[in-house]
Amino acid sequence: MKEDFKPYYAVIFTSTQNENVEGYSDMAEKMETLAKQQKGYLGMDSARNTVGITISYWESLEAIKTWKQQTDHLVAQQKGRQDWYSWYKVKICKVEREYEFNK
Amino acid sequence: MKEDFKPYYAVIFTSTQNENVEGYSDMAEKMETLAKQQKGYLGMDSARNTVGITISYWESLEAIKTWKQQTDHLVAQQKGRQDWYSWYKVKICKVEREYEFNK
Repeated sequence: MKEDFKPYYAVIFTSTQNENVEGYSDMAEKMETLAKQQKGYLGMDSARNTVGITISYWESLEAIKTWKQQTDHLVAQQKGRQDWYSWYKVKICKVEREYEFNK
Repeated sequence: MKEDFKPYYAVIFTSTQNENVEGYSDMAEKMETLAKQQKGYLGMDSARNTVGITISYWESLEAIKTWKQQTDHLVAQQKGRQDWYSWYKVKICKVEREYEFNK
């Protein structure tokens, strides 16, 4: 663990989708581009098999709140609940420490 | 948000694998079975495309530490570094709040 580690935040978004997800991947791409432009954005990890997992990383809880309420993102969230997701769960987490392996 | 929400912990494990991952899926299955038997284990989410994401959920930091040092798990970790992973990162997180959508 680095001595100078500064805690940051992670939003874990797990979801299952409906069979018809027309328009989803375009929107997901747009939202990723938009998230990257937000203040306090640190990065994102994403993978989907049966369950989809998207984790976004942020400098502060305030940055997460601002992103949650961003206008275009609100539209995407609404569309997600209406058309694409059968279930999702959001977890707001504080990253307290981390370590890495590189071969 | 539920009033009685009790914080818990998440271990975010992101990784990239080598081309040859012989023996990996058997070991992953074994480790999942074993994790479920650990004290303080709460659940797991997993998906892999380019990057693999496995998140395990735990009652406490102590439960995470005990699992990290579990004998068979230590063997799996060693094997992972030697044979399967080209890179991985582990983040220890405190889940501070969560919410869910169900259609």
